[in-house]
Amino acid sequence: MILCKTPEEVSLQVRKWKLEGKKVGFVPTMGFLHEGHATLFDKSLSKADKTIVSIFVNPAQFNDPEDYAKYPINTAGDLKLCESKKVDLVFLPDQETMYPGGIPDVLLAIPHLMKNLCAVSRPGHFEGVLLVISRLFHFVEPDFAFFGKKDYQQYLLIREFCKTLAFPTEVIGCETIRSDKGLALSSRNARLSESEKEESLLVSRALRLGESQIRSGITDPVLIRDIMKDVLDSSSKIKLDYLEILNADTLESLEFLKGNLLLAVAVFIGPVRLIDNITLSVSE
Amino acid sequence: MILCKTPEEVSLQVRKWKLEGKKVGFVPTMGFLHEGHATLFDKSLSKADKTIVSIFVNPAQFNDPEDYAKYPINTAGDLKLCESKKVDLVFLPDQETMYPGGIPDVLLAIPHLMKNLCAVSRPGHFEGVLLVISRLFHFVEPDFAFFGKKDYQQYLLIREFCKTLAFPTEVIGCETIRSDKGLALSSRNARLSESEKEESLLVSRALRLGESQIRSGITDPVLIRDIMKDVLDSSSKIKLDYLEILNADTLESLEFLKGNLLLAVAVFIGPVRLIDNITLSVSE
Repeated sequence: MILCKTPEEVSLQVRKWKLEGKKVGFVPTMGFLHEGHATLFDKSLSKADKTIVSIFVNPAQFNDPEDYAKYPINTAGDLKLCESKKVDLVFLPDQETMYPGGIPDVLLAIPHLMKNLCAVSRPGHFEGVLLVISRLFHFVEPDFAFFGKKDYQQYLLIREFCKTLAFPTEVIGCETIRSDKGLALSSRNARLSESEKEESLLVSRALRLGESQIRSGITDPVLIRDIMKDVLDSSSKIKLDYLEILNADTLESLEFLKGNLLLAVAVFIGPVRLIDNITLSVSE
Repeated sequence: MILCKTPEEVSLQVRKWKLEGKKVGFVPTMGFLHEGHATLFDKSLSKADKTIVSIFVNPAQFNDPEDYAKYPINTAGDLKLCESKKVDLVFLPDQETMYPGGIPDVLLAIPHLMKNLCAVSRPGHFEGVLLVISRLFHFVEPDFAFFGKKDYQQYLLIREFCKTLAFPTEVIGCETIRSDKGLALSSRNARLSESEKEESLLVSRALRLGESQIRSGITDPVLIRDIMKDVLDSSSKIKLDYLEILNADTLESLEFLKGNLLLAVAVFIGPVRLIDNITLSVSE
């Protein structure tokens, strides 16, 4: 496994691979890797000839300094996982490499996909995501890039941004990986106590209940939202950030639950913010 | 000379060239080519192995529908010029190719370089420029791209945008080409009558006077601006849009004229808007 710390090293290696006709898959991460990331690596390893993983906790996408300061780090463990999965190259830049002279003054946005959910709860978050993705994609020049659908709005936004700017990279969304009990895997789960982890199961339970009620024929979004909210409200430890049922393609509100649907939840459990979602299709 | 109408054709050819180790130079234009463009082609032909010219009147960067409707077009003549200059490939997309489904909803900006000059006079203009440049750069994937410094703010902005997003393209600014009498070459000059062309010479005359006064030791920007404004005001046919003396690197205002300076003018002559500028260095 090749370890690179500068964009120049990555670019040199990638261009060598491209001269050999190799297709490059890319999984950008913020480290503290778990089975969800490993699934993205597997997707890339099976679709591309060479797989690159980047590990960089991107300060530009944190609106909450405490969240950034406490973001878990485990570089040694991450590298071991990448090695064991047979990742071809790990890009491990430092802040000065990613943002020489500090976070730059630039505005990147797809306004119609940034009107609700995390875009509103975390002002500036997605602008920082689009910045780091733009820089990473230009360093790595991947043919494919893989993102987990746990961060559904992020996935949709990156896909649309790359299509709009015509990045020569295919953005591929991958299904959320969950614990046996249903908790969506996230690096932030490491900050939960055992009892908080137990409470957090209510998030996926609410989503599954919402889904089953929609599948049973209920088309009123307000009713479904109330049913889901009751589940989350049953724990005093859960503070709701948002709970929305939207068109999964446009992120627009719906009068009737038909078509491609997104059920999206964000909660705080103590100081830790967790998000989860499911998508489903209801024939129109 | 290769003529391509789709991004796929361009990309296929460029990737073939890259496999042969060729460096690619790119000159994006809006057509109605003149000697200023030809000079950019020469720069590219001498620096790169292969030179690509795009011709596309970008609707996303026109804030004034009349300006867009009346923008001069001469595709046959443009292709002849490219052929005679030995340009390797011309990319001639149509609107549907460049913006399938219409101009997309996206926001691209470098706020600190978009606070004055054309960014204020032409709201939305540079956002449209950054969009088309992003798409073109991703289609062409050039090693070098060449821009005239007549559009100085555009050049600075594109250079900064590409650096900020880490496009793997070196953005190169080239000196403004002028008529014998001093008029900065522009496709829009074609819309001027002979007498309007005569009046338009006052623009470069004002710039040269400002420069000589600064070189003679005057450091007060207000005084220099007044001297220049008198030149422009001497014609009743000239309507001033802006006249500014700024730091040429940051586009910030100055209390004293020292360092790298930009003298920038925009005027209307009849319905035609013309811009011009010069840069100079005054030791601090």
